[in-house]
Amino acid sequence: MIDEYGQRAVTRCEILGKPPYSESSEYLFRPYLSQAYKQSQHLLVQWMHEAGMTTHIDPAGNLIGRYAGQTSDGPILVIGSHLDTVRNGGCFDGNLGIMLGIEVIDYFNRQQKRFSFGVDVIAFGDEEGSRFPVAMLTSKSVAGILNELPTGLKDKDGVTIEQAFEAFGLNYQDIQKARYDPQKVLAYFEAHIEQGPVLEAEGLPLGIVTGIASQYRFQVTLKGQACHSGTTSMALRKDAMAGAAEIIYKLEQCVDSCGQEGVVITTGQIVASPGAPNVIAGQVVFSIDLRAPTDAQRNEFAEKVNEIIEHICRKRQLRHELLIQHDLSASLCNQDLMSLLEQAVKKVGVPVRYITSGAGHDAMILAHLAPTAMLFIQSPNGISHSPDETVRCNDVTAALQTMIHFIELKEGKK
Amino acid sequence: MIDEYGQRAVTRCEILGKPPYSESSEYLFRPYLSQAYKQSQHLLVQWMHEAGMTTHIDPAGNLIGRYAGQTSDGPILVIGSHLDTVRNGGCFDGNLGIMLGIEVIDYFNRQQKRFSFGVDVIAFGDEEGSRFPVAMLTSKSVAGILNELPTGLKDKDGVTIEQAFEAFGLNYQDIQKARYDPQKVLAYFEAHIEQGPVLEAEGLPLGIVTGIASQYRFQVTLKGQACHSGTTSMALRKDAMAGAAEIIYKLEQCVDSCGQEGVVITTGQIVASPGAPNVIAGQVVFSIDLRAPTDAQRNEFAEKVNEIIEHICRKRQLRHELLIQHDLSASLCNQDLMSLLEQAVKKVGVPVRYITSGAGHDAMILAHLAPTAMLFIQSPNGISHSPDETVRCNDVTAALQTMIHFIELKEGKK
Repeated sequence: MIDEYGQRAVTRCEILGKPPYSESSEYLFRPYLSQAYKQSQHLLVQWMHEAGMTTHIDPAGNLIGRYAGQTSDGPILVIGSHLDTVRNGGCFDGNLGIMLGIEVIDYFNRQQKRFSFGVDVIAFGDEEGSRFPVAMLTSKSVAGILNELPTGLKDKDGVTIEQAFEAFGLNYQDIQKARYDPQKVLAYFEAHIEQGPVLEAEGLPLGIVTGIASQYRFQVTLKGQACHSGTTSMALRKDAMAGAAEIIYKLEQCVDSCGQEGVVITTGQIVASPGAPNVIAGQVVFSIDLRAPTDAQRNEFAEKVNEIIEHICRKRQLRHELLIQHDLSASLCNQDLMSLLEQAVKKVGVPVRYITSGAGHDAMILAHLAPTAMLFIQSPNGISHSPDETVRCNDVTAALQTMIHFIELKEGKK
Repeated sequence: MIDEYGQRAVTRCEILGKPPYSESSEYLFRPYLSQAYKQSQHLLVQWMHEAGMTTHIDPAGNLIGRYAGQTSDGPILVIGSHLDTVRNGGCFDGNLGIMLGIEVIDYFNRQQKRFSFGVDVIAFGDEEGSRFPVAMLTSKSVAGILNELPTGLKDKDGVTIEQAFEAFGLNYQDIQKARYDPQKVLAYFEAHIEQGPVLEAEGLPLGIVTGIASQYRFQVTLKGQACHSGTTSMALRKDAMAGAAEIIYKLEQCVDSCGQEGVVITTGQIVASPGAPNVIAGQVVFSIDLRAPTDAQRNEFAEKVNEIIEHICRKRQLRHELLIQHDLSASLCNQDLMSLLEQAVKKVGVPVRYITSGAGHDAMILAHLAPTAMLFIQSPNGISHSPDETVRCNDVTAALQTMIHFIELKEGKK
């Protein structure tokens, strides 16, 4: 029985993975406020109604399904995730969390079970930020932390966000009205695919998220001297590429040897100039993405990053600049909710595994509104943001069972 | 007196550094067979005539000035370097060697001194290969090693090499007729700026070139797994960028610690894919330029390159491909000519410094025709292929004096 609900959540994600729910027929792409986004909302409205919910579109363009509580003035448990996708993305990223929200309500509705709290299932609009050069405007609006409206935002076709709102039947100036009253929100819950390989490596279906990692993104510029690769002896070089290589390697070694789970460091972008095989690089610009479970851990490693870069540049007579491009504090999940989630996971008979989320989610925004909890579902091969993204039906069913127990436990606790 | 000849050689290079001898008024660019190239030849013809030479354009488009010997059937000493430049190049690269050839003849001509051999000063056309995707066709023609004519060559405006020859008044099919008879060539001599920082670092004006370095250029492709930088624990990564960084760093360490002068290794080109700060690189392609004084040394280090890449890729579970893009054997200068050059340098009162040329020169092609000798002139700051390229007049004069002694010594030896 529960298996069928889990299977349906998967099937519904797959349905939403193709036109008219994708802008492209070659790959999945569902940007915020697009035609594909509107079509997807229409289908979701139907599924929400079938599950016993009333629906509305909020001033930020989020679709909200409401399952009323026993009383009309009770608090609200919010379940959410995002409806938008990256270009050439997978169909489970974000969407699965919404589908699980609908399934869990359908399950309770068939039993005619109501709680002392209402449940809102929110399909957020722009977690990925794949249309406008900004992300999570819609969850920020709901959380009430969108203090200033970003202006001058255009998509790649030159359409402004104001125009996109108007075409959607909304007014961008009203976006802040999507705000929930913090007094009325009991908690925020989000189920999401892990998008990483950790659960699979340990053979586990689910992970209880402890929080969303603290992050720094640096841009490092090394300046040396561009010279002929054949005529400049090793001793007389100021080789920015050799310096970058030593830095990237030593930073990896430093993190590898620290023994602190959840600390990761990555260089994914690098540009060497002038960029010819027979010219020593006079300049190299590269990215450093540093994440850690807590701000304290991140700051400790950021200091090491600084020390390593300074030491290597001094030794090699390179000049350097270190620019902070992102500075995101850790968003910790609520301890009480984690305990409930642990009980729920145990009831399902699944091993308990706590895990830090290295990626950002709407949950880190909603943490400003209410206590949050997140459940990860195994990503086979750790693949996401790719058409190869998948999930296992059994894992999805386990997540659904966990959510059912979690809500029942929450009702018991209240 | 000799000072003035040296000064004039420098001034003439500077004259040739500007329009109409450059295709651009913003920077120096004199590609093979261009209008600027033709104009420069016209001016050189005048200077060669003034120095007592007869001139002709050979079937490859090289300008040749001839200073007859005492008899018409004697052998020929060839002095040469190249007239073409890279885009935004310096005015001494190549050109200075031609000017010194003209000055040395002018010096002997004023003394009405003829030798048992004739002297040809050749201004080669395409050492840099900055117009067509090929280089040193003109010196290969003279050396008689152009066995097959490259076909389908076009410049960036779509002009074929055949059309460029026709516009210049020549027939590309005749290029091989530029060949010299090896029986008649006594030796090839080339003076050239060092284009590197070694002589300056040691405070020396001149270097006697022992040969042109042996070279391999590799293209390395590392393939790992592109993954989210936040969600993939360090232990589960197959990070092609971290692998590339370790390889580049370890190769540099290996060469640095070998204690063999003239062995150099460089990575100047690197592309990481997909190239986003928050995605672990699934693929990195980078260049390795390896040079050494002898083929044996180069091959020894090429084996180490192989070992280091294989070891690191095995450890990191990366796949790799190693492609040889250039394979140039060392071209050694002639021992007897080096001894004469050493005597000449001593006569000038300048310290003797033997040096391997890490860069390629027409001399390495001419080595197939005759014994070769090369003299390097200090490059201040090691800068070349740049408008900042310079020379010191005193060094140029010392080179000219060395050439005068060298020719006189050669006459004595014959």
